[in-house]
Amino acid sequence: MSHRSNRQVRLAARPTGLPKPTDWAIADEALRDPGPGEVQVKVRYISVDPAMRGWMNDRASYVPVLALGSVMRALTVSEVIESDNDAYRIGDWVAGIDGVQDYAVSDGSQYMKIDTALAPPQTYLGTLGIAGLTAYCGLIEVGELRAGNTVLVSGAAGSVGAHVGQIAKANDARTVGIAGGPEKCAYLIDELGFDAAIDYKIEDLQKSLARACADGVDVFFDNVGGETLNEGLGVINVGARVVICGAISQYNNTTPFQGPSNYILLLIRRARMEGFIYFDFRDKWPAMLKDLANWRAEGKITGREDITEGPVDIFPNTLLRLFRGENFGKLIIKLPE
Amino acid sequence: MSHRSNRQVRLAARPTGLPKPTDWAIADEALRDPGPGEVQVKVRYISVDPAMRGWMNDRASYVPVLALGSVMRALTVSEVIESDNDAYRIGDWVAGIDGVQDYAVSDGSQYMKIDTALAPPQTYLGTLGIAGLTAYCGLIEVGELRAGNTVLVSGAAGSVGAHVGQIAKANDARTVGIAGGPEKCAYLIDELGFDAAIDYKIEDLQKSLARACADGVDVFFDNVGGETLNEGLGVINVGARVVICGAISQYNNTTPFQGPSNYILLLIRRARMEGFIYFDFRDKWPAMLKDLANWRAEGKITGREDITEGPVDIFPNTLLRLFRGENFGKLIIKLPE
Repeated sequence: MSHRSNRQVRLAARPTGLPKPTDWAIADEALRDPGPGEVQVKVRYISVDPAMRGWMNDRASYVPVLALGSVMRALTVSEVIESDNDAYRIGDWVAGIDGVQDYAVSDGSQYMKIDTALAPPQTYLGTLGIAGLTAYCGLIEVGELRAGNTVLVSGAAGSVGAHVGQIAKANDARTVGIAGGPEKCAYLIDELGFDAAIDYKIEDLQKSLARACADGVDVFFDNVGGETLNEGLGVINVGARVVICGAISQYNNTTPFQGPSNYILLLIRRARMEGFIYFDFRDKWPAMLKDLANWRAEGKITGREDITEGPVDIFPNTLLRLFRGENFGKLIIKLPE
Repeated sequence: MSHRSNRQVRLAARPTGLPKPTDWAIADEALRDPGPGEVQVKVRYISVDPAMRGWMNDRASYVPVLALGSVMRALTVSEVIESDNDAYRIGDWVAGIDGVQDYAVSDGSQYMKIDTALAPPQTYLGTLGIAGLTAYCGLIEVGELRAGNTVLVSGAAGSVGAHVGQIAKANDARTVGIAGGPEKCAYLIDELGFDAAIDYKIEDLQKSLARACADGVDVFFDNVGGETLNEGLGVINVGARVVICGAISQYNNTTPFQGPSNYILLLIRRARMEGFIYFDFRDKWPAMLKDLANWRAEGKITGREDITEGPVDIFPNTLLRLFRGENFGKLIIKLPE
């Protein structure tokens, strides 16, 4: 018996709009020992992602509905501390979906072992994890990027958007990013190598897009939805691919999502709009991770991280930072050791 | 000199909302003789299509903007009456884009010669023309129909929709059609072989779709837009193809098109929404026309026609019938001989 106490953030209520403190319950329970074939881990890094808002709803999507009272679902990087499973040894690092808690016990089947010599552990939540893989799948597989294309990215300073821009540049495309505020826009140009940046907080999107995308857009990678999606659709070229990765502007709506009236440009320009989930490309992850690791080693991809240290208790407020656009790079909680 | 008078319907003003009588000008001009290499035709059948509304706007789409004062653009079936072009002889029948007028003179390069022994001339505006080819391109090429799929069609009793349903049945799919009124719904089931029909005028679309598409929709062929598109998106399956062919409910809006808030289902269901124009598949038309002619000969496709006889003067009112949903089948004007 470990006698350890496991602190958890549980979903207490389905939020309306932005999650409120009362939508969460923080609880301590006794950590159970691993049973036969099981592995026990200490969660070390928790990924804070826009998709989490959808996971709180009472509607099945690409993942099952999270029951009220359950530990909040989260991607994690964890360290094995006990093991009755031949595949894992104490001290191994694993990427998985352990949730917002200090410890987890499972059969280990969901884990991917990670190499902390190749990159720091939290990189497996960024460039070598959800952010890099999402960008890669969306841009290359769904967006069918070709050299010379113009790529428009919304939420460009976010973790996925930053990877989209850099992968596009690594593939000889022209890149235009939409982000909020002068600091983020400077980051797009100076650190990520975007060809143009649009500050949605102060610029007229329609006019700025017409100027920055004078030759139109071939791939539009949308993380934002709402007016951003609509105005981006307004500048698509014939045969364009509009990749729907997220809709962070809409997730906390208490009214229906804003639908893009410019969807009719899909007809006029014979273009397509397509959603995807990076899970669906699992078979191709090994090859993608190889490319991503190479680009990282060559300095073509940097993954900015916004790491907050603290106990799981800080999760509810950290999640809100994401929806207020306050994070700058991949938002991660680092738990105490 | 022919001394013939050529009556034309010209675009006099850009409409706001539904076209008004003052948006048109009817004029007679002297018909010119064919010059060297030219061909002169008598227009016999004029196709009346929803896309015409878009052609009246001051916005380039897949066809150039129609200048004010021009003869209204229209697909036609015409008969050659004079020819200085070796490719055409007097008495030949041709499908083309001669516009809303009695006669036309051109170099003939846009014409496709048609075989009136294989099918009546107006069939080349329906099953063996824009309606059949649009349905074929959208369903098979863009929609990637597979046997066993459930196909949802809006505007199902219209000329394109009726062909979509029948081509889907010819390819062993299950078909659900949305149409307005009991007569059209009975037509879908009794004459076109749809598996289910929804009357949008009296039924709650969301409830009816949930019932008629209990296993979801794999291909949604949308001619209507607005709430119909939105509710159809609500029942798509993982991997579905939403084919945007038109948006007849929105063409006469004086406000922006209604955007589909359910577009986010494209993400949740990893589906795509894609627009197309049948012109883009010209290379494949010969093979498609062969299939369509075979299905027609086998009785698998019937193309109901709604033919109004009269001079070109009736065009403005005939077009309005389309937007009021009053036509029943492919709407065609037959000009006096």
